[in-house]
Formats: sequence, C-alpha cells, structure tokens
Amino acid sequence: MGGDNAPEQVLQGATQAANEMGIDIAIVGLPGAVQPLLDKHPKLVLVPCTQVIGMDEHPAQAVRSKPDSSMSVCARLCKEGKADGWISAGNSGAIMATALFVQGRIRGVERPALGSVIPTRDGFAYFLDVGANVDSKPEYLVQFAAMGAVYAREMMGRPEPRVGLLSNGEEDGKGDELVREAGRRLKGTMRGFVGNVEPKDLYASKADVVVADGFVGNVAIKMAEATAEFLFRNLRDEIPRTARGKLGGLLIRDGVRQLRARIDWREFGGAPLLGIDGVAVIAHGRSDARAIKNAIRVTREAVDNQLVGKIRAEVGR
Amino acid sequence: MGGDNAPEQVLQGATQAANEMGIDIAIVGLPGAVQPLLDKHPKLVLVPCTQVIGMDEHPAQAVRSKPDSSMSVCARLCKEGKADGWISAGNSGAIMATALFVQGRIRGVERPALGSVIPTRDGFAYFLDVGANVDSKPEYLVQFAAMGAVYAREMMGRPEPRVGLLSNGEEDGKGDELVREAGRRLKGTMRGFVGNVEPKDLYASKADVVVADGFVGNVAIKMAEATAEFLFRNLRDEIPRTARGKLGGLLIRDGVRQLRARIDWREFGGAPLLGIDGVAVIAHGRSDARAIKNAIRVTREAVDNQLVGKIRAEVGR
Repeated sequence: MGGDNAPEQVLQGATQAANEMGIDIAIVGLPGAVQPLLDKHPKLVLVPCTQVIGMDEHPAQAVRSKPDSSMSVCARLCKEGKADGWISAGNSGAIMATALFVQGRIRGVERPALGSVIPTRDGFAYFLDVGANVDSKPEYLVQFAAMGAVYAREMMGRPEPRVGLLSNGEEDGKGDELVREAGRRLKGTMRGFVGNVEPKDLYASKADVVVADGFVGNVAIKMAEATAEFLFRNLRDEIPRTARGKLGGLLIRDGVRQLRARIDWREFGGAPLLGIDGVAVIAHGRSDARAIKNAIRVTREAVDNQLVGKIRAEVGR
Repeated sequence: MGGDNAPEQVLQGATQAANEMGIDIAIVGLPGAVQPLLDKHPKLVLVPCTQVIGMDEHPAQAVRSKPDSSMSVCARLCKEGKADGWISAGNSGAIMATALFVQGRIRGVERPALGSVIPTRDGFAYFLDVGANVDSKPEYLVQFAAMGAVYAREMMGRPEPRVGLLSNGEEDGKGDELVREAGRRLKGTMRGFVGNVEPKDLYASKADVVVADGFVGNVAIKMAEATAEFLFRNLRDEIPRTARGKLGGLLIRDGVRQLRARIDWREFGGAPLLGIDGVAVIAHGRSDARAIKNAIRVTREAVDNQLVGKIRAEVGR
C-alpha cells in the first residue's frame, strides 16, 4: 500500500521477482484495492489488512493507533515465522517504528540504522545512518560502524571492510564533538577503522563503510541527490541552446543514461534496517517495478546471508 | 603567501583588480619571495613580514607563535585603519584565528561564521556556516541567520531575504536538537524566516539564506562539490567510449564549460568572515588570478556596502 506507485508497480515488481528468483511472495494490502489487480499476478498471494498508514502520518502514533496496518501485518508475518522478511515503500519513519514495535531490536543494539549504497570511483560504498536517528550518541556511531562492517562483509563481498567516519577533515582532531568521541572509541578497538573521511574520500573509495549520525547522513545524501539532479537538469537545459549542443546532446544521450543508471537508487532498490531482530527493508517512496524487484532481491540476500544473525553475533549481547 | 598559487597568481589577480577597480592594493609577504616579482606589477606595494603560517599548522598555535606572519600584518593594517580589508588564500583556520585575535569580534556576536554563495535554479543562495564553527549552540544559529540576512540584503540585493534552516525534512518537527531549537527561536522573532529547508529546496531557491552548524554546513558543501566532481569525471570518462559519444562530447564542450563556470567557486572568489569587527576575506586555497581578483571585488563590496557596520547594527550590542 505504500509509496507513490502502489499497488500497481509493487505487484509488477513482485511478480518479476517471484519469476526470476523462484520465491514466494505475499502482498499485504486492502483487499478492495489489491484483489482486482491480482488476476494478472497469479504467483502472488494476498494477505488482507484493514488499515493503511499514510505518508504524512506521525510514525509512532500511526503504528500504535493502527494495529492492523499493512506494515504491522507484514512485520507480524515475519515475527511469527511465516515470512522471512518484509518490504515497504511507504512512510519510512512508520516502517522503522513498525519494525521496532513488532519485530524489536536485537538485544544489545542501542539504535537501528538505515544504510544506503553509494556509487564511488571503484564501485560502491555503504553509508549509514542516512536517517533512522537524529542526535546520536558516540556509542550509537560505534555500533553503526560495527553493523555497517557486517553489511559490507555479508552483502557486498568485502571480507575486511575499511570503516570511516564522515567528517569535515581527515585529521584526527576534525569533526564535531560526536565524531571526535566516536573516533577516539573506534581507534584501536575496531580493526579496519580508517579514521575520518571527507565527502571526496567517500567517492574516492577510501572506505567501504562510512558512518554518520542520521541527521548529518540524511542531509549529506540528500545534498548528493539534489546536486546530481541540479547538474543533470542544467545540462539538459543549457546544452541544447545551440544547434551544435542539440546534436551533441543527442549523441551523448546513451552515455548520460548509463551514468544515470549507475548512480540510480532504483538499482539498489531497498535498504534493510540494521539492528532489527528480523529483516525489514525500506524501499524508496518513488519505487517503480524495477526498484521493488531490486528491493526484494536485497531482502532475499539479507535472508540468505543471515544478516540478522551475523549482526547479533557481532553487536548483540 | 597563502594558497597553492602564491605569490605569482595572487600578484596577477591583484594587479587586475587594481586596474579594473581603481583601488590601492598592498601585498604582504616575505620580501625575498615577493620583491623579485614586483617589477611586473608596478601598481602593487609590498608590505614586508618575516613569518608565514603553513597550510598544515594548528591555527591558534600558529597565530600566537607568529606575530609577524603575513596574516597578522594584514589584519593589523586593517585594525590600524591603514587598509579597509584583507584577503588570504592560506590556512583558513588561521585566517579566522588571526581575524579574531587581531581584529576581534563585533561586540555581541557569539561566533563569527563563514558563508558560501551557492548556485541555484534562479540565481544564488547564501549558505552559512560552512566551516568556521563546530558544535554550535542554538543562539549561534540564530545569529548566523541574522548575519546571513544582512549579507543577502547588502551584498546580494535581496531587500527582504527569506532565511531557512538546513534540515532533513521540511516539517517543523524535523532536524536534530540544535535545528529544532534554533527553529523554535527564529519562528516568530525573525521576519523572513521560512523554516526548514532540505537540500533540494536550497537548489530550488526556496530561501535566500540557508543556515547550518559549521560541521553540517562544511560536510554539506563538500558533499555538493564532491558529487559535482564525481559526475563530471564520470561524464568525461564514459561518454567518449563510443565514436558517437566522442563526437557528442566535442559538440557539447562549450555548454558543459559554461555550466562548470556557472557553478565554479572561482567566480565568487572569496567569502568575508561575518561577525568580525573588520573585513577579512577567505579565498579558496586553490585560487588562481581570477579567483583572487574576484575575492578582491567581494572585499571591496563588503567595504562599500558597510557590511560590518550593518551587522553591528543588527546583531551587535
């Protein structure tokens, strides 16, 4: 029920995933909205719910007041062992609140975190927290570093991930109070800790995992997205102003499209919440079928790679 | 003496500024390094110093231990009324420490701030603090908002500047503790306060002035720079892979160059430190002659528009 393109695109993405990956997928939603569409999607099974959380609702309040929301039903299916993981493109605060409320935290994890895969010069880096928390304490950042390292190892094939703290300078003394204190704690205790990384270092692949408070991480990732959007829009508007530019623009269209695809969040599809005692994946609100399919792939990989068990072993107690 | 291209490019930029703007410019530097080059720059006057602060020195320590650094001599010329403003492309922390130590703060200003002019859809916005402070308190952000509004009014021709707080969401409840508290204080007390702005709102020109803590602002601006750099590099590398792309790349070269120029910091040249009791301008460390000339233009405008007096009237006490 969540996101800009539900249920249509969600169903399409789910059917594609079911076909390609050979997995069973349940669609949780209002029967009136979903049932009529399911004729075209014979592989999908409807699990009904009676409530839906809107994009603008206050997360915690909505989760408490709507125990039969599609999100809560999803999370309960996982909690009860009937499903291995769930995905939503809806209100991301509510997804987190639902996961926390129904599935709970891994014992010993202070705060769950949300990561994002970022394109870099040599491939990808994993950046967290991009918005699950604000006002983090140093101990949260230390745990984000550990959970991020597990993610890089299990989900991205980096056996010895290098982990850095996003900062305003590389030197040890740089950073705000939070970053400086987290750095002091990570130094010497975490194998693979590489210290502070600046944004340019992130793109230069100087770390596999980059850690920040969720306010800073969210602003940083939104700054990157908005800057890319701004530049592509300007290129599109300014280049065709001359006849030369118009022709050139046509000729480079494929190259630009490839670049945009390479940095497109739809390729990555979704991000598992780290630290939840179960698999809960947040997909982008604008997800189309391709993004949903990719979110399902990420969910499947989290399950297959036992991401939750590995985080429990590393960070839990 | 400061920056990657001193003294050569500094002298060239200064001569260009002296010619175009009809102003008197003193070059403060080690005579051994500067004097031999001055034959080609008859409009410039050397004011000697005996010490130089390096790019990697600890700012406060360096300023204290080198009372005859080129920076301190510059700031003293201003303090003594012999110059109207000074510029350096050197160690920016040391520029700030020198300005604070020699020229001092405007009485009533808690912390000086450094702003940056950001290209947007409709023109430019003014973004501060981009690095003068970390661990800001709400009252600092409130003053940054007021100083930023003066800058927009006096230096950018915005008679009624709209001022926003950089945040992870537009709604009132968004932001970390600092942003939320600063928002509460600005709401109702500051005319023109428009609340939270996300990075995309910044590019969409929803505010003339955008305020952040210096750690967040510095990371955000470096994220924007690094993202732009990353995209341009990828375009340059990926597009010419095909013959079509190669030709297209040649045809769009002018358009791309124009776009890069439009977002190039060299155009803006330098940023006055706001809240200092005098004019002190930080130029980019990589400044070439054009950037230096533009930094001198900014300095001149700050003097002509009585930026310091207007900030004193608005924020001082």
